[in-house]
Amino acid sequence: MKIGKATHVRSAICTSNEQTIVVRGHNLSNDLIGQISFPDHFHLLVTGRLPDAAASAVINATLVAIAEHGLVPSVQAARMTLAAAPEALQGAVAAGLLGAGSVVLGSSETAGRLFLRVEQEAQQHGGDMQAAAHAVVSDLRAKRLPIPGYGHPEHKERDPRVDALFEVARQAGVAPKYVDIAKTIEGVIPGVVGRELKLNVSAAIPAVLLDVGFPINAIKGVPILARTASLIAHLCEEMADPIGFALSYQATTEQEYTGTLPAGFKSE
Amino acid sequence: MKIGKATHVRSAICTSNEQTIVVRGHNLSNDLIGQISFPDHFHLLVTGRLPDAAASAVINATLVAIAEHGLVPSVQAARMTLAAAPEALQGAVAAGLLGAGSVVLGSSETAGRLFLRVEQEAQQHGGDMQAAAHAVVSDLRAKRLPIPGYGHPEHKERDPRVDALFEVARQAGVAPKYVDIAKTIEGVIPGVVGRELKLNVSAAIPAVLLDVGFPINAIKGVPILARTASLIAHLCEEMADPIGFALSYQATTEQEYTGTLPAGFKSE
Amino acid sequence: MKIGKATHVRSAICTSNEQTIVVRGHNLSNDLIGQISFPDHFHLLVTGRLPDAAASAVINATLVAIAEHGLVPSVQAARMTLAAAPEALQGAVAAGLLGAGSVVLGSSETAGRLFLRVEQEAQQHGGDMQAAAHAVVSDLRAKRLPIPGYGHPEHKERDPRVDALFEVARQAGVAPKYVDIAKTIEGVIPGVVGRELKLNVSAAIPAVLLDVGFPINAIKGVPILARTASLIAHLCEEMADPIGFALSYQATTEQEYTGTLPAGFKSE
Amino acid sequence: MKIGKATHVRSAICTSNEQTIVVRGHNLSNDLIGQISFPDHFHLLVTGRLPDAAASAVINATLVAIAEHGLVPSVQAARMTLAAAPEALQGAVAAGLLGAGSVVLGSSETAGRLFLRVEQEAQQHGGDMQAAAHAVVSDLRAKRLPIPGYGHPEHKERDPRVDALFEVARQAGVAPKYVDIAKTIEGVIPGVVGRELKLNVSAAIPAVLLDVGFPINAIKGVPILARTASLIAHLCEEMADPIGFALSYQATTEQEYTGTLPAGFKSE
Repeated sequence: MKIGKATHVRSAICTSNEQTIVVRGHNLSNDLIGQISFPDHFHLLVTGRLPDAAASAVINATLVAIAEHGLVPSVQAARMTLAAAPEALQGAVAAGLLGAGSVVLGSSETAGRLFLRVEQEAQQHGGDMQAAAHAVVSDLRAKRLPIPGYGHPEHKERDPRVDALFEVARQAGVAPKYVDIAKTIEGVIPGVVGRELKLNVSAAIPAVLLDVGFPINAIKGVPILARTASLIAHLCEEMADPIGFALSYQATTEQEYTGTLPAGFKSE
Repeated sequence: MKIGKATHVRSAICTSNEQTIVVRGHNLSNDLIGQISFPDHFHLLVTGRLPDAAASAVINATLVAIAEHGLVPSVQAARMTLAAAPEALQGAVAAGLLGAGSVVLGSSETAGRLFLRVEQEAQQHGGDMQAAAHAVVSDLRAKRLPIPGYGHPEHKERDPRVDALFEVARQAGVAPKYVDIAKTIEGVIPGVVGRELKLNVSAAIPAVLLDVGFPINAIKGVPILARTASLIAHLCEEMADPIGFALSYQATTEQEYTGTLPAGFKSE
Repeated sequence: MKIGKATHVRSAICTSNEQTIVVRGHNLSNDLIGQISFPDHFHLLVTGRLPDAAASAVINATLVAIAEHGLVPSVQAARMTLAAAPEALQGAVAAGLLGAGSVVLGSSETAGRLFLRVEQEAQQHGGDMQAAAHAVVSDLRAKRLPIPGYGHPEHKERDPRVDALFEVARQAGVAPKYVDIAKTIEGVIPGVVGRELKLNVSAAIPAVLLDVGFPINAIKGVPILARTASLIAHLCEEMADPIGFALSYQATTEQEYTGTLPAGFKSE
Repeated sequence: MKIGKATHVRSAICTSNEQTIVVRGHNLSNDLIGQISFPDHFHLLVTGRLPDAAASAVINATLVAIAEHGLVPSVQAARMTLAAAPEALQGAVAAGLLGAGSVVLGSSETAGRLFLRVEQEAQQHGGDMQAAAHAVVSDLRAKRLPIPGYGHPEHKERDPRVDALFEVARQAGVAPKYVDIAKTIEGVIPGVVGRELKLNVSAAIPAVLLDVGFPINAIKGVPILARTASLIAHLCEEMADPIGFALSYQATTEQEYTGTLPAGFKSE
């Protein structure tokens, strides 16, 4: 069935013949395997260009920062899935990644779009970034929308990963355009919201990535790729020392049934 | 509900308090972000240890080698999924990863298990690896089972990525124990099968990974992680230049309906 | 980790002891198995109430209507996934369902929300539904948004399933409140858009479901449940007569590589 | 890329032109919508035939029986996924279905294959089904394999759904060939295993389905379809009364970290 008008299949990422696999214009076997690191390859795949040293440092740092944070919901979902379906590691990884949504890991992208919006808004304010940040945050509050990338359930002070990421970018000599926007937003929040909401890791990641030219459409890919590494580690631990069903058991030890009961039914 | 006997939730991968996230015994913010590369972090997460230089080189090379091979089925599934559900990048990545199964990307793991089996079988043959390989391949053929990691639909000669991976391991000074087993198997195949089936990338990957001590249970994680990077790249291209529905249209231009038809129905 | 404030686990859907499983207040084994149909059970699970005869007829009709439409993208994704990962039927079903997104199957829900919006808008127009429909459609056009549930890539005339669904509801004696809103919208479209966009099945489904009191939040569940049945059928056919890899092959026979090439590379 | 030899795309399930959608030889709009129930449509899609009354009764009963059993792992995974990614209902359903694996819901299929194996084995025993069951169960025990469909974590006596399903089949006049095999296996287990393992719902489902001619390859589809209905209900409850993050919080309240700690780290 034809959906939409496009019928032409094309891609600029890869082609191959019997001897050679070409990835983004490079001979994969001769010029990439053993020549570049996997994060640089990720950058090449996504953007078509090899990263410079600063971009490489920043991408590695963001991937390391967001990979692991313990038995978070997506890890639990993955471990329960492997316990129930040990025949398909890929299914358990997929179940975990499906939780990389707008509320949890996806806020890296929405925070990045917030920075772009503040940057654009500043044009209405003669380049005054603080006025722009104030206007945008005020608009979000007026619409009762969250401010993506600010505040954290566990880390009330600034998330410890934030300064580490900013420091990596600083040492790599990256001009802090979006990092400054991110900090400006943090600064205006108390005046608008009435309390501090500190920059968290999901704001720091797009700030440093946008500063090295990583495309906004690909930013959500960073937590997804990072979390895949973590999910694989948890699933290997699950194979050796299973807790998938223990998690689901513990989750419901104090469960309350709020529906009606047939006559004579006794809870245990 | 209690499934199985285990009710105790434990993990050795991560813990945290309000100031500090601990990953595998290291302070994430102070000691890992900006200090180690993402592939080394992956090794740390999976094994609990930082890799040595040789292991790091090999892991990067395998991840680069297996990330991308064009519009393969899993990429097509992901791009069609994003076209239909653009609100969930994670869902499109998950749809792609679900095709990392036993037939396609999963053969890296099964090839690795084949090498371990040959290694063990050699004990029955006084350490004669060739005799062991012959016995194991013969047993697979007798049971009409495939030989995972040998032969390729496009690359009839040795897959061009194979020598690149072996060369990375050699230059890193890795003792080629499993690489030699992999080659030994390739050598005995013509005598058993009656034709050559060349070592492909799914055999080379576990060979070099096992040679640097990467655990067999985690080997399938390497193509899964690598393919995640590729899927993200294809999905970013899909956002900019969509072909998801064109793929599904092209796939069925010569479709045949083999069922019955109601009276009066005319195909178009 | 605590995310948000809620820590209390509760549900009104099911409880059990060693002898009895209670579903929505009913004894599953005594009062539901063999006593009610599966679609009625679906209604019970979702709403807490057994459906009346009209609701039962409409739910069955919508599930039958939307289950199957050939080798659509989600079916192709599922069949390719099973070909690559035959060990996990559930993974192939999941890959297919991930394409039940906002563009394709999810438009049933967005069309339903459109009807609710027109209904609410009518309060601003003294109950004049046509004026309300005109205002809402005009607003969508002004924002260059699609009109969910109207138009179809293959069926330029009214989708043949639409009248069948409306007739089921009519014969069941359902008062056509949302069906009338759906038709009213269809009627105002030419005047706003400049051409006809006929009511399609994704508008008919929420119209008849809302008319029998099915909750808006659950409407997307109807195409998801229906499509699951279809995916299972296609995957059983795939096991017996595989086309998963043929689909991916056909999809790329006329593929164009739009990137650069290394010196000396010859396409085949 | 060409994988395998097949390049021809064909299917016997559906075709369409601009006026008519044909499903398994029937005109969908004229002859199926409003004419047949959704479970009968499922049977038609899978087998190509409409079910007789007995098959229809049995399919409905099995779907009702296996749809819901409270906050089981797959439901927890789905609810956590929706909490993290509310933009994609289909992703949360998929995450739940990915847990329909070999250990949990998939045992319906493996139990069905066990019955077929006993049936075939009986040919070696002059048709003596008890001897065949004894031989097969003994073989499973010798290989330390589980006996799929027997025993249950909560219901030590026969699962209450089992007799309900058998009674539906009996009242529908179904000849109990596979039901008898299932009971025969239950009877020989104490003599082989040393304790009772009662027939559970995952054995009863394939027994009654095989007795009405439902194909073995499609049996896993029954719990998958049934569970989809339950997942949709739980996800609608999750939208109205969220517990996804409460589940993940409760699951880890007594979590133990078993790794090492950096100097100076204090747990909270």
